Amino acid sequence: MRELFFEKGLGVIGEGSMSVMRKDPTTEEWVVLATERARRPHELAHDQHKAEPPAFVPSCPFCPGNEAKTPPETLVYHNHKDGSWQVRGFANRYPALTEEGMTNTKLEEGFFMEMNGLGIHEVIVESPEHNKPLALMKDSGVKNVLLAYQERYNILRGKPFVKHITIFENHGASAGTSLEHPHSQLIATPVVPREVRLRQKIAARYHDDTGRNLYSDLLDHELRLNKRIVMKSGGFVVFHPFASHEPFETWIMPKRPQACFGNAPAADLEEFAHVLRMSLAKLYHALNDPDYNLVIDTVLPGGENEDCYLWHLRIIPRLAEVAGFEIGSGININTTLPEETAQFMREFHGEEGEE
Amino acid sequence: MRELFFEKGLGVIGEGSMSVMRKDPTTEEWVVLATERARRPHELAHDQHKAEPPAFVPSCPFCPGNEAKTPPETLVYHNHKDGSWQVRGFANRYPALTEEGMTNTKLEEGFFMEMNGLGIHEVIVESPEHNKPLALMKDSGVKNVLLAYQERYNILRGKPFVKHITIFENHGASAGTSLEHPHSQLIATPVVPREVRLRQKIAARYHDDTGRNLYSDLLDHELRLNKRIVMKSGGFVVFHPFASHEPFETWIMPKRPQACFGNAPAADLEEFAHVLRMSLAKLYHALNDPDYNLVIDTVLPGGENEDCYLWHLRIIPRLAEVAGFEIGSGININTTLPEETAQFMREFHGEEGEE
Repeated sequence: MRELFFEKGLGVIGEGSMSVMRKDPTTEEWVVLATERARRPHELAHDQHKAEPPAFVPSCPFCPGNEAKTPPETLVYHNHKDGSWQVRGFANRYPALTEEGMTNTKLEEGFFMEMNGLGIHEVIVESPEHNKPLALMKDSGVKNVLLAYQERYNILRGKPFVKHITIFENHGASAGTSLEHPHSQLIATPVVPREVRLRQKIAARYHDDTGRNLYSDLLDHELRLNKRIVMKSGGFVVFHPFASHEPFETWIMPKRPQACFGNAPAADLEEFAHVLRMSLAKLYHALNDPDYNLVIDTVLPGGENEDCYLWHLRIIPRLAEVAGFEIGSGININTTLPEETAQFMREFHGEEGEE
Repeated sequence: MRELFFEKGLGVIGEGSMSVMRKDPTTEEWVVLATERARRPHELAHDQHKAEPPAFVPSCPFCPGNEAKTPPETLVYHNHKDGSWQVRGFANRYPALTEEGMTNTKLEEGFFMEMNGLGIHEVIVESPEHNKPLALMKDSGVKNVLLAYQERYNILRGKPFVKHITIFENHGASAGTSLEHPHSQLIATPVVPREVRLRQKIAARYHDDTGRNLYSDLLDHELRLNKRIVMKSGGFVVFHPFASHEPFETWIMPKRPQACFGNAPAADLEEFAHVLRMSLAKLYHALNDPDYNLVIDTVLPGGENEDCYLWHLRIIPRLAEVAGFEIGSGININTTLPEETAQFMREFHGEEGEE
């Protein structure tokens, strides 16, 4: 959390009331919701509008006309009318992991474990327009991006060494973007990350204990309590989770239990595109285009995952700094209450787009 | 990681070589060391010197003369010559957790787990001088701060509800500081954080398997390999760990196995103060005063912790943004090699102070 000691204009709400600790049922991490230092939702909006970039930047390697500056295309969707591209995919030019080598683990001095950086790292350019983030696109544009995610996910998961694939977007400098042109990334790893393994374990134990899917139960409880829901459609729910680790942390979850994003039906993606675009547009307009990270939490299909897991999307706006307490303890201090931020977003009706 | 696509002046080293994945033996997390996108150590220095603040700021609640603006003192060390204070401790005015209430956990809808925000949150002002961070103090000043950490740690751990105490410092705005005047904090929690519990489990299993202390073995291997050591004293080792999660991540570890920082002998703290001050001074001068978080990783004493754990200090310079891949997978991408950053720091001899 950003430290709060003596800041002016703090807007302390619920002064004198105690903070609470809540446990994230999916990770078993405690979170501190510090009502003593809580801020009203609107106080987290950026003070200033960011300078709006132009629609086309001649030097941008992701802008039309500069296709030769990127590695060869792995994916391209065209506009049926004029043949121009709408979404492009290609290998990352400075990949974190590459397909060279094998997964053989070696031990340094019989103690330290190291292996080759085997994996795949790809980029998806979301639109030809330099200044059109997902929040400002039409539903149809967002749907194309989701279809591209799914297409590349399903191709990458066919490789025998791939054990996990992270799909993510970094929006804005504080979220780690180096290129302004809207784009997403996929990284396939030769291991299931410890954190993903932990979530699977927790969900599997819940299934062992109850015979039910942890994520479905979580969603049922959020729907029944109806305090942290931002928006619903026939098949999807947008909510700020009970144990939100960060202010305005937003989850979008399909009601249909399905472990793997790669298997979501095309009709679901259409509906998903709409609620995702609406959610991002609300954040964009209500908080003045905050930087954020977006990740799709998914596991590979099959086996017990199908009973235990449910793919979903998380948006983490970058409104608070992680500091020493979080680094030392792994416990986040969130200075907002998800009940209040969800209500704020539910009631916010700005320019939410044309569709 | 900060994304790297087409940045100029990237200073790519080892181009064409593969990146590696390394497993942190203490957390069992994999880290990607991306040599394809690696940066030379000096490239991570701040471009500009930060503006140096004045030694005294009349409006600063931590500066001398403003003692009445803070909650009552829990600790104060005086200068024997003139009676002025050197270190002050007090409750945080906007505490994340407070001593009110009890730990009774309640379930919302029989599903979501919540409890009162029971705990203690304290501040330690490190010096009367507004512009004197630990890096620029004398060894004796740093020793006083460590003595204050230990005194408050040992008092807080006496409370029956306290299950873990995190000692930390946030240095600089990107590390979460809101007040410039150098200060540290302690937060006592009524639970052992999941991340701390995991580390204890891993260390206990290692002890079950080998009869040895994981942290002592890690230190022995680092000393034997002698590739990532920055500095040694009789009883302490400063190194950049094998699986560094962040660029210039620095660990300071005592050679004597001891689970709890609260039990470190005074003579050890004197030596610890010297190596800590030297380590922070090297970072300050070599990288132009980077923002950083400092945490002491310690567990409560007694029981099997004594066989399995070894307290140590971690410095995490804030040189890279955590982005979507890290948030989604928990795997960090580090664009530097600890062998290279440790060598760089070992060979750097700037103004490292007077003592």
